[in-house]
Amino acid sequence: MILISGPASTDLAERISQKTGLRLMKIEHKLFPDGESYIRFPERVDGEDLLVVQGTHPPQDRHIVQAYLIAENAVDLGAKSISLISPYLAYARQDKRFLEGEAMSIKSVLRMFKFAGYEKIYTVNIHSPWIAESSPLPLINLHAEEALASYLKNKLNVENLLIVSMGKKGEEMASAVARELNAEYAVAKSSRDRVTGRVVIELELTKRAGDIVVVDDIISTGGTMTEVIKALRRTGANDVYAACVHALMVGNAADKIFNAGAKQIIASDTIPNRYARYSVAEIIAREIVRGK
Amino acid sequence: MILISGPASTDLAERISQKTGLRLMKIEHKLFPDGESYIRFPERVDGEDLLVVQGTHPPQDRHIVQAYLIAENAVDLGAKSISLISPYLAYARQDKRFLEGEAMSIKSVLRMFKFAGYEKIYTVNIHSPWIAESSPLPLINLHAEEALASYLKNKLNVENLLIVSMGKKGEEMASAVARELNAEYAVAKSSRDRVTGRVVIELELTKRAGDIVVVDDIISTGGTMTEVIKALRRTGANDVYAACVHALMVGNAADKIFNAGAKQIIASDTIPNRYARYSVAEIIAREIVRGK
Repeated sequence: MILISGPASTDLAERISQKTGLRLMKIEHKLFPDGESYIRFPERVDGEDLLVVQGTHPPQDRHIVQAYLIAENAVDLGAKSISLISPYLAYARQDKRFLEGEAMSIKSVLRMFKFAGYEKIYTVNIHSPWIAESSPLPLINLHAEEALASYLKNKLNVENLLIVSMGKKGEEMASAVARELNAEYAVAKSSRDRVTGRVVIELELTKRAGDIVVVDDIISTGGTMTEVIKALRRTGANDVYAACVHALMVGNAADKIFNAGAKQIIASDTIPNRYARYSVAEIIAREIVRGK
Repeated sequence: MILISGPASTDLAERISQKTGLRLMKIEHKLFPDGESYIRFPERVDGEDLLVVQGTHPPQDRHIVQAYLIAENAVDLGAKSISLISPYLAYARQDKRFLEGEAMSIKSVLRMFKFAGYEKIYTVNIHSPWIAESSPLPLINLHAEEALASYLKNKLNVENLLIVSMGKKGEEMASAVARELNAEYAVAKSSRDRVTGRVVIELELTKRAGDIVVVDDIISTGGTMTEVIKALRRTGANDVYAACVHALMVGNAADKIFNAGAKQIIASDTIPNRYARYSVAEIIAREIVRGK
């Protein structure tokens, strides 16, 4: 089995290779001046089982096309099997036809990957976990909560930690992290004011919190995270940390979060980003070794 | 039959609709803040024959994914047939395995479009015309030379025009344009100096030229075009025009071309660009009407 390092996820591929001991083959890649991707396999892959590490974070479409071209090339060059490790899966928020005539983009992207030859996809904390059930190819959704909790326990010198999250999906994540830490958790209700358009946060705390970690699967523009942190600061909390799995960090998201009073942003390395404090390499490596 | 205007080619779709009289349906489209495309059909398409106008110029991968999502959505919504009009076809320069292990990207992109449901693709002056022969789905390569010649004849007030191009493929284009104009043409040999890396132009003119139009299928970074224009200016030509079908115009390509002494850049509207002087709508419309 060969681990293939796609252009989107070279560092994570290296970490997974170290954890699994699998041989790493780096895709030869460049961008032409006009923006087209060039893909080349520097070694033969005929008869080999391939595991391609390629996230589909922004620029999503470029990374999707690269993942597609890699699989097409692998099949053409005689690979025995190919699986995809895409720790962040693009288009996962477009999983239903909310309005008539809408594209169900995640379904189409998964169909593309299957057509290209991928037999299986590994991902982490997918935004819409129910996609796995109707996926056209096996989709294995791994969980980063354990890795996040382990970082909070070992690297953050805090006591009396409260985990806070938003909404029903947030509750699952908050409770999982809290369980690992033997800590308490609370769930904020976020809604949008119909008149002003502002995000309104409702949160009831049973006691005055010490240090707080706000957790969410994705930080995109940082809007909700910012409002939750502001609301928490108003309750007189000590340090407030903003934690996520996938740090999309669109535009000035990080500035907004720090300005709201966050002491630190804590993200995983599913997407290469400067706030990556913990790695999902271990949980991916474990699943690969288990599946071999 | 409905003409569908994809996000990449709204203006050209409008022009084709005017020329053919086909009803135009504009895809509802937006980009989410993180860069994902949203695609929605504002009308029912079940039982309809659809012609999707969507170029795959830069950002190529975004436009490819959009073309893919449009076809997937059309099939899912019960369209009777779908064809693609992609006046500029991305990845057409990656048509062979020049080095072992290279992806043959254009073949893979065409396979993707076929899988998504497209039955046929119309394109204009494809960079590698031989792709059509091995294409996994019918690929109709239309020619813009007539439209360019017609612009030169009617809008450019010049006499004694010489058409110049580069290389074997350039010769085909130059001779086609010259034939329409009843003008002469010459072909420059361009090569790269092995030591300096500079593009070297060799061109023999039988007589001192008056006004010259340099034609090429694509202007990308403008490197070759710039060198040819400089060489022509040294021969003492009058006005020199830079003409192309596909104006990729990467970076400061236009500046370089103007600084070399070009009087005007003349491009078609296969790619939306500020130098579009002539349209390929007519040649596309004619082919559609013929094929109906």
